[in-house]
Amino acid sequence: MPRLEGLIPPQTGVAIRARAGETLRLIDPEGSQVCDLFCFTDDPERVPLSAGRSADYNDTILFTRGNRLFSFEGDPLLEITHDTCGRHDFLVTPCSQQMFRMMNGREEHHPSCLENLERAFAPFGVDRYRIGTTFNAFMNVQIAADGRLQVLPPLSKAGDHVDFLLKRDLLIGLTACSDPGSNGGRCKPIRYAVL
Amino acid sequence: MPRLEGLIPPQTGVAIRARAGETLRLIDPEGSQVCDLFCFTDDPERVPLSAGRSADYNDTILFTRGNRLFSFEGDPLLEITHDTCGRHDFLVTPCSQQMFRMMNGREEHHPSCLENLERAFAPFGVDRYRIGTTFNAFMNVQIAADGRLQVLPPLSKAGDHVDFLLKRDLLIGLTACSDPGSNGGRCKPIRYAVL
Repeated sequence: MPRLEGLIPPQTGVAIRARAGETLRLIDPEGSQVCDLFCFTDDPERVPLSAGRSADYNDTILFTRGNRLFSFEGDPLLEITHDTCGRHDFLVTPCSQQMFRMMNGREEHHPSCLENLERAFAPFGVDRYRIGTTFNAFMNVQIAADGRLQVLPPLSKAGDHVDFLLKRDLLIGLTACSDPGSNGGRCKPIRYAVL
Repeated sequence: MPRLEGLIPPQTGVAIRARAGETLRLIDPEGSQVCDLFCFTDDPERVPLSAGRSADYNDTILFTRGNRLFSFEGDPLLEITHDTCGRHDFLVTPCSQQMFRMMNGREEHHPSCLENLERAFAPFGVDRYRIGTTFNAFMNVQIAADGRLQVLPPLSKAGDHVDFLLKRDLLIGLTACSDPGSNGGRCKPIRYAVL
């Protein structure tokens, strides 16, 4: 039985607290849906996750089972222990209101992962500028030999999941990504469980 | 005549303030030496540079002339207007005391780009956890088709330089990288000028 579980409705986000030794499972219930993850140590320091430190210490930009995600201070925070999809992104920042304004040329509000993370973290007193590059579970960013990036529909099928073993007590923000273009044309929910 | 210029001795760092419309030139005087760059808007907000936003908006992880570096908020901060080297890194975080301790198995102090940036920014009241992935000028990180990273000696020759046009007033931290392994075996100086 999971200690905690929930459904993140399309284009929303949540923050959860989980302990070292627990496993966070992210499930794509319908398939082809991205889940942005960012986290801080769950202590007064609120040390952020670091994509750059993680790339450096894993010697890779493509993360799957066996890889660890590191903090700004170089401490391991999460270890990927199971991965039925195999393709995730840890290069690009969450979609934002500014991004949608730029892409669509419209001023009106658009839900975004950045806003959803900021809102989820707000009750915990986190400085928003510490939210760095997110681990974008199921996001399919293809990288050409010349470094060019192309965002394609996620490869995840309904029920695909990725498990993260916590190496530290963490405050974790999760979203069901708000950008139709990154999610095969339609924004869908994400399910999570803490085991 | 440059408005400001200087030599960054090996394994040290500096912070400078420069204005929108000015050009920052980074010069590798001896060749094969990395210079880590991080910056914030020079206003009370201190909005940080964002590697993830920059990768997303340039659709690339390899940056050269014509590419722009963006802030956390998605505003352009710097534009690369000239580049005689052509190979830089914007994927990995600066070397740190923790990294050298881990690599060398020794506790003693080792100069590092992270410490040098933190020290350089300290008088400006910057939250250290806002220092994200640096733009590592001249750093040669090769990326295999499977995503694996390999740090090779910089391709820069003596006198190679890269120019950044400032799109905003910026507080910029620069280092002459402290890791012999990333700099062809020997840590050398970096020269900079604001034109």
